[in-house]
Amino acid sequence: MTVNAERFLEDLHRLRSFGAAGVGKGVVRPAYSEADIAARRWLAGRMEEAGLHVRFDPVGNLFGLAEGPSLLMGSHSDSQPEGGWLDGALGVIAALEVARSSERPVSVVSFQDEEGRFGVTTGSAIWSGHLPLSEADGLTDHAGESFASARAAMADLAGDFVDPSQFTGFVEMHIEQGPTLDTEGEQIGVVSDIVGIRDMKVTFEGQQNHAGTTPMHLRRDAFQALGEFNTRLGERFRNVVTPRTVWTIGHVRLHPNASSIVPGRARFSMQWRDGDTTRLARMEEIIRATAQEVAEARGMKLGFGPLLGLEPVAMDPALRAALERGAEAVAPGRWRRMPSGALHDATNVSRLMPVAMLFVPSIGGISHDFAEDTDEEDLVAGLQVLEHAVRALG
Amino acid sequence: MTVNAERFLEDLHRLRSFGAAGVGKGVVRPAYSEADIAARRWLAGRMEEAGLHVRFDPVGNLFGLAEGPSLLMGSHSDSQPEGGWLDGALGVIAALEVARSSERPVSVVSFQDEEGRFGVTTGSAIWSGHLPLSEADGLTDHAGESFASARAAMADLAGDFVDPSQFTGFVEMHIEQGPTLDTEGEQIGVVSDIVGIRDMKVTFEGQQNHAGTTPMHLRRDAFQALGEFNTRLGERFRNVVTPRTVWTIGHVRLHPNASSIVPGRARFSMQWRDGDTTRLARMEEIIRATAQEVAEARGMKLGFGPLLGLEPVAMDPALRAALERGAEAVAPGRWRRMPSGALHDATNVSRLMPVAMLFVPSIGGISHDFAEDTDEEDLVAGLQVLEHAVRALG
Repeated sequence: MTVNAERFLEDLHRLRSFGAAGVGKGVVRPAYSEADIAARRWLAGRMEEAGLHVRFDPVGNLFGLAEGPSLLMGSHSDSQPEGGWLDGALGVIAALEVARSSERPVSVVSFQDEEGRFGVTTGSAIWSGHLPLSEADGLTDHAGESFASARAAMADLAGDFVDPSQFTGFVEMHIEQGPTLDTEGEQIGVVSDIVGIRDMKVTFEGQQNHAGTTPMHLRRDAFQALGEFNTRLGERFRNVVTPRTVWTIGHVRLHPNASSIVPGRARFSMQWRDGDTTRLARMEEIIRATAQEVAEARGMKLGFGPLLGLEPVAMDPALRAALERGAEAVAPGRWRRMPSGALHDATNVSRLMPVAMLFVPSIGGISHDFAEDTDEEDLVAGLQVLEHAVRALG
Repeated sequence: MTVNAERFLEDLHRLRSFGAAGVGKGVVRPAYSEADIAARRWLAGRMEEAGLHVRFDPVGNLFGLAEGPSLLMGSHSDSQPEGGWLDGALGVIAALEVARSSERPVSVVSFQDEEGRFGVTTGSAIWSGHLPLSEADGLTDHAGESFASARAAMADLAGDFVDPSQFTGFVEMHIEQGPTLDTEGEQIGVVSDIVGIRDMKVTFEGQQNHAGTTPMHLRRDAFQALGEFNTRLGERFRNVVTPRTVWTIGHVRLHPNASSIVPGRARFSMQWRDGDTTRLARMEEIIRATAQEVAEARGMKLGFGPLLGLEPVAMDPALRAALERGAEAVAPGRWRRMPSGALHDATNVSRLMPVAMLFVPSIGGISHDFAEDTDEEDLVAGLQVLEHAVRALG
């Protein structure tokens, strides 16, 4: 029995009817919204029809369990507040299609709140033991609602947490959410690792002054310090980074942020990502040393906020090899190994079992946007790679 | 008869009792506040005692008029929302002291709303004909109150506008509000010109992207465009500017301004000041060309807001020469010619008559702050320079 591409696409389009935005194929289906809960009820029904045993856990993670030991596949069915139809949904529906067509035991999962209404990959973080439920219950969304209150909306469905020891591994298919595959005209990305992240707020504090009466040579302008730091950092990183390393200054706040006042303070975010822990640490040294030099040369106070970090996660070699063989069979010469620059539920699940991930292209690299899309041909190619891999693993 | 330093300092301290902040010598006396109106009533009384004819105009500018043609001296007695005791007040009380001790006819003015609760140097802008009263009446402060409503609080005092043709010139003494005199250990600055200002908002628009999945070489990061623009501008200005030219990026707004998102848009203020109109124009060319180059190299859209400008104002040679001779008599070797980087009422008054300005040091260059201060010795030195100049002009 082979996967049914038509049924797979039909279910994928059906899922997007829950919370359909009415703009392109976009969806509005944040975790615990009415649309999200309705979608999960529908998914549970489809799982049952596929012969899977349905279980909701206390936070709304939805499992469709095969008998005995099984391979777990899936992703998440909640969306960003203004999200695309494939982010998460693709991995869940592909898993469902593989589970109902495969002779090997495959279980399906749709994790809850991957998009972080309350945190970061909340549902899988709790299931994997990374985030204690009691701590999660105190988290609040932007509107001030608590996680405890939000998950109560699904209390009638909730059972116990699902025992992870029944799963032999986890495979998550996802859209790339970046431009690489689309730019290169490739169909499949087999993920080598999920990159690690470091994130830190940095503050330069100089002297707020009148922008008319303060000569340039007497200024201690915090924005100019940030500018010099940014330029030097780019130069110094050159000998350290790979083409896959990224770093971003995405948030900047000047004080008092007025056109006639020399900025006295610049607070900004410094975020960097790479698959190699050693490189992440080397970059941190360079960031700290460069900021220190700039601060000293300009008579500035320098402050570093806490360093937030997530370690890189390497994909399991056996699962990854199976996906690579599948990719070569389905899309010969049109696939690549690549890191995932974004976080996924697989990061959390890797604490419990071997994991692997598969990407299909995002048109224009667009995601977290109603305009997010992928050619149906590529969606089906991804499904077929999963099918190949499951057969090979059997 | 000579100026009375003790009486001058007493009146200066008395003026700061109106709206005293209770923090250092700071004052809270914004235009049309109760404290401001009470201070103006008190000033009017002191003017009368000095034999001057008191006139409030329709916007609360307060004049103490000498008989016949006279030299006008003064500044403003309103303050910033959190202001220093000398900004404006010094020039008004020094003028009063000179008027009451001089044998030459000297009139005194305290302009209203120099600090711009409703605009920029509002009272003198209206008196000089630069800002029509009907237009001013529509201006509102941060709390939404209109200028028309605010000035109504002084309606019982208001007479007609004062005829400027009775004045032979205007001399304004002011604190420097910058660090130059204090840093150099000098007592007096004779102003050569009030610098011109250009101010423009610039926007780089690139592509908002995921900070994890977008490789560096595919990014169109608006903050990086701003960084490169800033660096290049500093290099290009080197051959164009003088040590007195200043330029400032004081306001920056990134969109969406989140640490995990490559900024899609950077909007920032570009302000530059110089005493020479040609140099201001040359700098504008460089700014526009540099921004254009950066935008083209990075595939960015570039936008320029309207160019706001105030022309440089040269001080009158005869008034300025009189101040310079006075400075050399009072503080030999401890004075300098210097531009004013800040705007003053004299900018507006120059539309009506010859003007000149005198600076005394600001300790630490601090102004627009409760901590603003000047050594009393320097305050008195400034008063004596005015006295010398008035005698010489007579």
